[in-house]
Amino acid sequence: MMTGFKAIASGTVTSPKGFLAGAVKAGIKSQEELDLAILCSEKPCVAAGVFTTTAIKAAPVILSQKHLKNKSARAIVVNSGCANACTGDSGMADAVDMAKLVAEKLGLSTEDVLVASTGVIGVPLPMERIRAGIREVVLTKEGGHELARAIMTTDTFPKEIAMSVDAKPGEFTIGGVAKGAGMIHPDMATMLCFLTTDAVVDARFLQAALQKAVDVSFNMITIDGDTSPSDTVVILANGLAGTETINSHNGELFQKALDEVCLYLAKCVARDGEGATKLIEVTVEGALNEEQARLAARTIAGSPLLKAAIHGNDPNWGRIVAALGRSGAKVNERKLDVYLNDVCVMKQGSPVPFDRQELGTSLAGKEVSVRLYLNLGRGKAVAWGCDLSEEYVTINSAYTS
Amino acid sequence: MMTGFKAIASGTVTSPKGFLAGAVKAGIKSQEELDLAILCSEKPCVAAGVFTTTAIKAAPVILSQKHLKNKSARAIVVNSGCANACTGDSGMADAVDMAKLVAEKLGLSTEDVLVASTGVIGVPLPMERIRAGIREVVLTKEGGHELARAIMTTDTFPKEIAMSVDAKPGEFTIGGVAKGAGMIHPDMATMLCFLTTDAVVDARFLQAALQKAVDVSFNMITIDGDTSPSDTVVILANGLAGTETINSHNGELFQKALDEVCLYLAKCVARDGEGATKLIEVTVEGALNEEQARLAARTIAGSPLLKAAIHGNDPNWGRIVAALGRSGAKVNERKLDVYLNDVCVMKQGSPVPFDRQELGTSLAGKEVSVRLYLNLGRGKAVAWGCDLSEEYVTINSAYTS
Repeated sequence: MMTGFKAIASGTVTSPKGFLAGAVKAGIKSQEELDLAILCSEKPCVAAGVFTTTAIKAAPVILSQKHLKNKSARAIVVNSGCANACTGDSGMADAVDMAKLVAEKLGLSTEDVLVASTGVIGVPLPMERIRAGIREVVLTKEGGHELARAIMTTDTFPKEIAMSVDAKPGEFTIGGVAKGAGMIHPDMATMLCFLTTDAVVDARFLQAALQKAVDVSFNMITIDGDTSPSDTVVILANGLAGTETINSHNGELFQKALDEVCLYLAKCVARDGEGATKLIEVTVEGALNEEQARLAARTIAGSPLLKAAIHGNDPNWGRIVAALGRSGAKVNERKLDVYLNDVCVMKQGSPVPFDRQELGTSLAGKEVSVRLYLNLGRGKAVAWGCDLSEEYVTINSAYTS
Repeated sequence: MMTGFKAIASGTVTSPKGFLAGAVKAGIKSQEELDLAILCSEKPCVAAGVFTTTAIKAAPVILSQKHLKNKSARAIVVNSGCANACTGDSGMADAVDMAKLVAEKLGLSTEDVLVASTGVIGVPLPMERIRAGIREVVLTKEGGHELARAIMTTDTFPKEIAMSVDAKPGEFTIGGVAKGAGMIHPDMATMLCFLTTDAVVDARFLQAALQKAVDVSFNMITIDGDTSPSDTVVILANGLAGTETINSHNGELFQKALDEVCLYLAKCVARDGEGATKLIEVTVEGALNEEQARLAARTIAGSPLLKAAIHGNDPNWGRIVAALGRSGAKVNERKLDVYLNDVCVMKQGSPVPFDRQELGTSLAGKEVSVRLYLNLGRGKAVAWGCDLSEEYVTINSAYTS
């Protein structure tokens, strides 16, 4: 029996059996762009979600959390161009209306519909356009690609994938789309990710598996340290592949495949950070424990000084060490080894001479690797970020008021 | 009896009685710039210090902390151009040598000399030049101005002040210099601050007063969230003003004046952040407690998205609220009021219409104020930062390797 998984060519969120999607130009962002989409399943789904941890949540996040309490859902409606955040009671009423309109269109109950919005904060949704848009959406098997484009804001490419898995509980597919730290107008950097699978999955296991996958992927990327009131990762499992029920006993490969899908999408988001020209991968090994490894890796990947240095192809490793030092992870400088693009620049806390020009040239590539060995314990973690370019500032200061 | 304080014209760190300083071009940074300085007192001093909290400390920090254990010191030697950080055992030997050379020059014991270095990480100090430079330094009453210039890296102006205080315990002066988030070559953003006073101050009170002053000033500024292995704030009190001994019972005005000196220097540092074109002041009132107010104010002042928006004169207040939301401070959105340059943009959690063009124009000024009322408690704090410009990135990616 095979037990493996592989990416499907042109895979997307509607690749698993029984999922349909569609998108329209509702005129929320502009007249020329897809900005409203619906994803739905032909059958009821077990569902799970992970949401922004910020204290100020957008109305759609609060509503979707409520609708997920029964661990089931069947459709997601999403718009870009307006985040429906900081919009008070009327914002919540608008989010409920979106769910209702989709429920009516598809013959579902309102609680079966999740809602996500991304875009400007503090501005009410143009409900007339959304109403008309929801009416116009046509759901198709290929619609996942349209949905992937409709949720883009300043993303420069759509982010979508599907993985077919041949596991002991049976064959199934996991699909996903994401949007990254992009702004519309520009405004909030919101991360959205919608995942689907046709596997039969135990509801409690699905939530735990999603949380695990998010922890090693979306929770390990950093563009600028800012968190959005709208961050949402949701998974729907409709069971149409007819597998055995996947749970904590037989779910190892499901977890691996889900991790892989989330990692792929998360790296796409990091690579496509605003103004980014390259992906930075930071690996921390030998930390006291995993928690400290995660802390160190994320702090280094998020350091503006390091990000700016990498942008300039500058092998300025002092900034790696400085970010590690302030991360809160325990460090013994005399045990520390640091590698930049596989070149050892610090060994046991002392600088190691290296060819500055050669390393500078290798830093000009599209991917940069930073690797630290703390030599204190067995904690390991990987984080991803992007370089910090002048364009990041230009994008984020060029609001035309 | 008067009880007040006022700034002294052209005041600097040598304005208090009995302090001398001098600086030379030792050739550490370049041939044309002051880069090595000594500050000393004619009499022994009670001393206190606050240092970087990072896990990887530069050798001079470790040495100065050791020399301050007896709560006394008499001289400080400082260089720019090389941080003497991540330099292993030989780096520590170099720091000790610097203290020894100054002690010999001035007839002090090595333990009386504190050391500070700022500049490139991971590169050994050019000890021959430092040795020669220390020999050449001439100490004068006006030398504080030279010292203020010698510690500059990418700072665009020297930061110095002195305040004369007429308090119940007697008249005295507090002086100070600082350098900010500047880079040399460029490398670490190090913050150094040297303070002096001729007041007679109880040693324990001095340490507590310095920590308090740092907490409301240097600990409330943020340029880019990166912390240096070299951050140092030190105060020397030589008692030459012949006041009563200032302690926790009679030290209120001393504390206020010290706060004021530190605030002035901290705001200079924020205003002169790399690539900065304006100062951003963030006030948070009505937090559950002071700790939460500090957290919220610092998080908002440090948000790259807000900093970029302010750079572009963009009244994009959603970013203020988003940063508040992720700060960790307790927030009830429905109670939240937000003001940008004194214009109310959010009241009790709902957007308030405002003249976008007028507010945009006012944001073009040199100082921008952000004010939030959480209406939950009595916690209040103020933090300072600067805008994020394309030039920050240019400065920090333009290492010429």
